[in-house]
Amino acid sequence: MNRKFDEELCLTNETGRLLYHKYAEHMPIIDYHCHLQPKEICENKQFEDIGEMWLSGDHYKWRAMRTFGIDEKYITGNETSYYEKYMEFAKILPQLIGNPIYIWCALELKRFFGIDEPLGPDNAQEIYDRTKKMIAEKSITPRWCMEISNVELVSTTEDPVDDLHYHIAMQKDETLKTRVITAFRPDKAMFAAKPGFGSYMEALGKAAGMPVGSFKEMLAALEQRLKYFKEITGTTVSDDGIPDFTWADASEEEIEAIFQKACRGEAISKEEDNQYRSAFLYEMGKMYSRNGYVMQLHIGTYLDANRKYVKLVGQSTGFDCADDTTRVQSVGELLNRLTLEDALPKTILYCLDGTNMENYAILAAGFCEKGVKAKVQLGAPWWFHDQIYGIDRQFRAASNLYPLSLSVGMLTDSRSFLSYPRHELYRRVLCNFLGELVERGEYFSGEEELGKVVQNICYYNVKEYFGFY
Amino acid sequence: MNRKFDEELCLTNETGRLLYHKYAEHMPIIDYHCHLQPKEICENKQFEDIGEMWLSGDHYKWRAMRTFGIDEKYITGNETSYYEKYMEFAKILPQLIGNPIYIWCALELKRFFGIDEPLGPDNAQEIYDRTKKMIAEKSITPRWCMEISNVELVSTTEDPVDDLHYHIAMQKDETLKTRVITAFRPDKAMFAAKPGFGSYMEALGKAAGMPVGSFKEMLAALEQRLKYFKEITGTTVSDDGIPDFTWADASEEEIEAIFQKACRGEAISKEEDNQYRSAFLYEMGKMYSRNGYVMQLHIGTYLDANRKYVKLVGQSTGFDCADDTTRVQSVGELLNRLTLEDALPKTILYCLDGTNMENYAILAAGFCEKGVKAKVQLGAPWWFHDQIYGIDRQFRAASNLYPLSLSVGMLTDSRSFLSYPRHELYRRVLCNFLGELVERGEYFSGEEELGKVVQNICYYNVKEYFGFY
Amino acid sequence: MNRKFDEELCLTNETGRLLYHKYAEHMPIIDYHCHLQPKEICENKQFEDIGEMWLSGDHYKWRAMRTFGIDEKYITGNETSYYEKYMEFAKILPQLIGNPIYIWCALELKRFFGIDEPLGPDNAQEIYDRTKKMIAEKSITPRWCMEISNVELVSTTEDPVDDLHYHIAMQKDETLKTRVITAFRPDKAMFAAKPGFGSYMEALGKAAGMPVGSFKEMLAALEQRLKYFKEITGTTVSDDGIPDFTWADASEEEIEAIFQKACRGEAISKEEDNQYRSAFLYEMGKMYSRNGYVMQLHIGTYLDANRKYVKLVGQSTGFDCADDTTRVQSVGELLNRLTLEDALPKTILYCLDGTNMENYAILAAGFCEKGVKAKVQLGAPWWFHDQIYGIDRQFRAASNLYPLSLSVGMLTDSRSFLSYPRHELYRRVLCNFLGELVERGEYFSGEEELGKVVQNICYYNVKEYFGFY
Repeated sequence: MNRKFDEELCLTNETGRLLYHKYAEHMPIIDYHCHLQPKEICENKQFEDIGEMWLSGDHYKWRAMRTFGIDEKYITGNETSYYEKYMEFAKILPQLIGNPIYIWCALELKRFFGIDEPLGPDNAQEIYDRTKKMIAEKSITPRWCMEISNVELVSTTEDPVDDLHYHIAMQKDETLKTRVITAFRPDKAMFAAKPGFGSYMEALGKAAGMPVGSFKEMLAALEQRLKYFKEITGTTVSDDGIPDFTWADASEEEIEAIFQKACRGEAISKEEDNQYRSAFLYEMGKMYSRNGYVMQLHIGTYLDANRKYVKLVGQSTGFDCADDTTRVQSVGELLNRLTLEDALPKTILYCLDGTNMENYAILAAGFCEKGVKAKVQLGAPWWFHDQIYGIDRQFRAASNLYPLSLSVGMLTDSRSFLSYPRHELYRRVLCNFLGELVERGEYFSGEEELGKVVQNICYYNVKEYFGFY
Repeated sequence: MNRKFDEELCLTNETGRLLYHKYAEHMPIIDYHCHLQPKEICENKQFEDIGEMWLSGDHYKWRAMRTFGIDEKYITGNETSYYEKYMEFAKILPQLIGNPIYIWCALELKRFFGIDEPLGPDNAQEIYDRTKKMIAEKSITPRWCMEISNVELVSTTEDPVDDLHYHIAMQKDETLKTRVITAFRPDKAMFAAKPGFGSYMEALGKAAGMPVGSFKEMLAALEQRLKYFKEITGTTVSDDGIPDFTWADASEEEIEAIFQKACRGEAISKEEDNQYRSAFLYEMGKMYSRNGYVMQLHIGTYLDANRKYVKLVGQSTGFDCADDTTRVQSVGELLNRLTLEDALPKTILYCLDGTNMENYAILAAGFCEKGVKAKVQLGAPWWFHDQIYGIDRQFRAASNLYPLSLSVGMLTDSRSFLSYPRHELYRRVLCNFLGELVERGEYFSGEEELGKVVQNICYYNVKEYFGFY
Repeated sequence: MNRKFDEELCLTNETGRLLYHKYAEHMPIIDYHCHLQPKEICENKQFEDIGEMWLSGDHYKWRAMRTFGIDEKYITGNETSYYEKYMEFAKILPQLIGNPIYIWCALELKRFFGIDEPLGPDNAQEIYDRTKKMIAEKSITPRWCMEISNVELVSTTEDPVDDLHYHIAMQKDETLKTRVITAFRPDKAMFAAKPGFGSYMEALGKAAGMPVGSFKEMLAALEQRLKYFKEITGTTVSDDGIPDFTWADASEEEIEAIFQKACRGEAISKEEDNQYRSAFLYEMGKMYSRNGYVMQLHIGTYLDANRKYVKLVGQSTGFDCADDTTRVQSVGELLNRLTLEDALPKTILYCLDGTNMENYAILAAGFCEKGVKAKVQLGAPWWFHDQIYGIDRQFRAASNLYPLSLSVGMLTDSRSFLSYPRHELYRRVLCNFLGELVERGEYFSGEEELGKVVQNICYYNVKEYFGFY
């Protein structure tokens, strides 16, 4: 049984191997959606060890470690070092067969550190030492990771109240070889039922330099920030979450009343919450449209499922799950209303209920129109589903429902600078899938056409779609 | 990389190839559900060009063209010719890898025109000319297409108010080699909430020659038409749609009140709509049962999702999507009520939420009973899902839940006379799937038994089930 | 085409074959959840013929026979012999390609009777005679079946009111080579809306030797029984069903009022039913936790879908279907509430809506915590889904979302003593899946690590998880 990383990973047919090595492998990466810290890029942080690089922010690994019953102190606790966390993690890694963490770690060790043997408890210390030395000697930093990965552009994600001072600094930094922009993510303005909504509105008003005492004023302030984000970084990327959502109509007066209740910290009902979210997303859609932004809708999170641990460890640390209540029609009605007003922006639909992506692919095609390629499109498999199986399934299923060749391709959605090999994995699965179609006789337009399709999905589509020039 | 149509398309194992070529390939086609125009068969319309044959009515192609941002005038517009539309379409075809349109076009070019090279922008003009010449010279007409495809029977779909005069003419036409019947589709009588319900009731009354002033009178009129459809064409096929449906009980008086409101064009609530649909489908089921019809339930359409374009381009032109709100229990309760009354007709369940077909296969088996093979059964993958992946997935998943060998097999559901190769594709995927089971050791009852299974699914089951003798 | 049972069944790659034959094939079986009759094990029932062994209690076969339109008298009727039923069944078996019944029968004939030819109408009589002779001569009994299958432990399933007298007898029986325990299944106490709830409460009070006049008294009685079950058999296994369930909060007073209504046989509303179930499951969870039981949640049955046949033939005879209304959040809220009280027991989630297992795998990982391996985990594919496709799909999809290596593996959930080859099938599919990952380069930690993973899933995990020592 093989005990080394295999360069033909996931490539099980000849055509797939040809396509990957000839057309996909060397394309630059545009990572149009991630959660990297701009501070770390700006200051070009020096990492301490592989423990920090792997375990300081990765809720995939944290969740896996919890399933093994490992004490939280070795997962997110402050009382242990990254070295200790890494050693705990290395113990379970050989048992993660079939899990994306296994192959991500393998790719990261190979691509960044040249290690092609399997990490496990036996060689954990040795690999720790070796990588630590390399991190120090080769000065493995955010920028180094991006450069060695051939990353042309990354988009971080910031809240509208952010002053973007790191981004401002990076715009002026001529030593920075990767273009860094940011996505506009107004989620906090949508969660009217969450504590702190009122004080967030104050912060927003302060950031925008205008009063935020009404729903309309809030929109004005958000639009000021949206324009600011574009002005500073040239971004066209936004990011909205839609957890557990049902479209609900309401009058302007009703929305205003809900907004006021939310600002005062009063409880709002599920129905009011849906009304507010509907109005909010509709207004944001119009705002994105008139400002040339792409709307990215992230559909179906089940936030804070385990409230004890959210309280102990914090939000977004591995206790969010996948929601199966949001219906396609609710998202469809949002698209419909915006279309009726000729105000539908380019839109990418991501859904966390993996099997539902077919219905969203179908929906997306129903809202495309002249002049824009793939105006509404299905996003890459999201979060829990951005692994080999999820990607492959989406290719197999959704390409029947929406032309795959128009896809803007992969993104990391990651907090780690080591995640770029996820693009490699996506490209491998893509080429393998396309090669299989060719070898089964399902496509015979030839290599030239297919090579173009591959390169469009890997690189050119996203550039054109977002206008990254 | 291969640049020619491959006769071993989709056949990746030896047993599959044997089964296809020996048992499936040459079986006649019974296309028991489609949307062809009886006028065109009756008059044996002469087509102008491949543009007309491909793009005059195919919402699959229209949707795909819209995703590429092509102007609607080249899709459904009156201001451009079919030649121009075809040329636009040919440009995108090589980019439709993984989409059923690609392989359907390839099969149609091969089977009807003998073309086995890939169509693309480079040879679009040449193939246009070649096919145009063949259409004229070989007199490529509806009847020619059906004959060359070995089609024994087709069932078009008509509204109850239709006088079936083309069907009457075809019954008498001894030159027509394919039997043509029609399905009874009373959808307009179910959409009580839609505008025009009242005037439709008037038309129904006129067609039936009886007053339609109440729910009961409507049922009587529908039954008169149902008997008429059978009398004229010998049909046993019906077609009911169930979009966004929740079973809801109501008294006779309540149903009558809803019916009266609907006739007057008054708004009816979602709950009333569900009550009306429940009562309607229940009564139709009984009617099908006592008249020896098969009930075909088409579950889960999300109609007119994009209302701006429905208004501009029309209904059923590519803006319907897939619904995920209809629950299995609602359909189950319909089957249950009919069973309790010993009035369940043979029933085929089609569902547009592709991943839900497992639950419907399970449901179907729960309502089978003595004396009828596969009394309630899962239909072939429907609409968005009638492609290689959808068909293959249904075989893999649903054959575990319901005997595949009892299936009445494929239908085109198409508006085009070129769609018969969809039966070929289905048969290829079927034989490949069965061959794989054999080669993995999951079946070893031998060729004779398996050949029978193949031929039953392709041809004999549907004949027996519908009584097409 | 092969006409013999193949020992490489389902093993399509070399690594898979190595893993299966070297690591999986010979592991003992722990069947931690089934529906065998303790009486039959205790008395070591002598079976009459293969007809009885196959058709006396198997709703899978009954459902399949009904789809063929076979008269109920040959399925569950008293007026025909098992011989006649078997002969009817043998007729359809060769047509069950793709269905688990086909391969289960093949494996059962091979493993228990040494028959490796395909059963069909032609040799049905001969195989009947041969197996009848073997049953008599080799004394094929429950214990023989378990011994020859290398079964170390089975857990039957009993109602809390059961006095466990067969289990008591078996504990003392030194000739019994397989350990037999029982699962605690309090479903009848949860179905407050069902007729007979009041008299069940009386029976429960009698069994527990205490009054059951309130919700709290009911819980006390259940806990008495729970302790009794553990005392007698040493069990740590429970079994709760969650059909069509929405989490709903209620006060203690409200729950008590619903309980009283239910005892009096008064109708309770759907909302009340949900409130009662929520409270019941929450209390049971706490009870399992403090008594060291594992909670097994069986999610999403659509019970008694066909009420006419349930009345004619009985409950659990093939007229239950799969429910798609229970939402992940409802189960999540149960886990959340128990976690907030530090009272979450080890929990296994089984879901009958097959495509929803991804959401449950994600949910499970969100509730794991220190000190317990795989505290909350996804169960093996359940009921309709415990076949090759369902198992394989779960491996492919869910191992990305939850470490497969921690799984407690397969169970039969069966009423038949011939069902142990389902473990074999699971192991084959498991090894084949793992082998494929290795051969695609997705795992390269080597044979020793992988062999451990295989043996853990087959045997050691379940032993450790339930504490079966």
